[in-house]
Amino acid sequence: MEQMKSQEWKAVIRKVPDFPKPGILYFDITSIFLKPDVYKEMLDAFCEKAKVYRPDFIASVEARGFLFGAPLALMLGIPFIPIRKKNKLPGKVREKSFSLEYGKDIVAIHEEDVPHGGRCLLVDDLAATGGTLNACCEMIEECGAEIAAVGCVIGLPFLSFREVLKRYPVFTLVDFQSENREEL
Amino acid sequence: MEQMKSQEWKAVIRKVPDFPKPGILYFDITSIFLKPDVYKEMLDAFCEKAKVYRPDFIASVEARGFLFGAPLALMLGIPFIPIRKKNKLPGKVREKSFSLEYGKDIVAIHEEDVPHGGRCLLVDDLAATGGTLNACCEMIEECGAEIAAVGCVIGLPFLSFREVLKRYPVFTLVDFQSENREEL
Repeated sequence: MEQMKSQEWKAVIRKVPDFPKPGILYFDITSIFLKPDVYKEMLDAFCEKAKVYRPDFIASVEARGFLFGAPLALMLGIPFIPIRKKNKLPGKVREKSFSLEYGKDIVAIHEEDVPHGGRCLLVDDLAATGGTLNACCEMIEECGAEIAAVGCVIGLPFLSFREVLKRYPVFTLVDFQSENREEL
Repeated sequence: MEQMKSQEWKAVIRKVPDFPKPGILYFDITSIFLKPDVYKEMLDAFCEKAKVYRPDFIASVEARGFLFGAPLALMLGIPFIPIRKKNKLPGKVREKSFSLEYGKDIVAIHEEDVPHGGRCLLVDDLAATGGTLNACCEMIEECGAEIAAVGCVIGLPFLSFREVLKRYPVFTLVDFQSENREEL
């Protein structure tokens, strides 16, 4: 049943070749939101997986992460804390810098909003190299909370996210085994 | 009752002085998400107001707009279409350039996802000058849909959004009458 659903969900996710650059196949979650029944069904399944980790709050990275993290927090009845890029959050923030393929990036969170000792479920749309997610986990730990789990809609296991995030429980809703379009 | 609730909601919204620059009082909706009951209550109220306009789909501007637009689309059981800044959406987009206080900005939408003749509810967190919202409305109209209404969590009526958006029905959940902190 779950396997069947997973195939259905994978079919709904739009695949855009050569975005953001030639040779990359981009998995676009925005096509999910065009089908409210599928969106709801995926959130319900995400919710079931999330409950196992008994999170006290959810944190998500802007902007796509918000589209699963916020509805999930509402379903679980727990707080939602947005993670944004540098200079976007107005309050007192803790920041974390991390390396990208080319250059660096910075994520930030309202430090005072993170519950000390709270169990965080970090939610994002896509787990690929795991670099951004790992920086977010470390930032949240530095705020005094713990990472209960990292949950993503899509996993690309042929990239390195499971290795990079090996200190944390990680779950995904669907996995794509290849960026080769013939195998999808 | 609505008046009482509105006062309660206004108290939950964090006010950050001198962000993003000196003299500006920033109304921060992220404090709403720390209180799941209040978040849910505000969405319920938003949903009641939205229903009147019988929208076929919801569109929201990244990133904060997603936090109300997406849950609302789920509640109404209608599609959600994200509006993003230039070069963020992977599919074929229609763009709209508009003027800011200093310089220009560009919003974009997946044109093929906009239902021709569909009634759009445009959702955002804050109505201030109305510049971004108006550009979004025009872009959606250029895709062949109509604007059923523009709904925002916070309205700042001392800025010009009602004048700028006068072609469209506009509603807000709460209004702040002044940026003067003494009057809040």
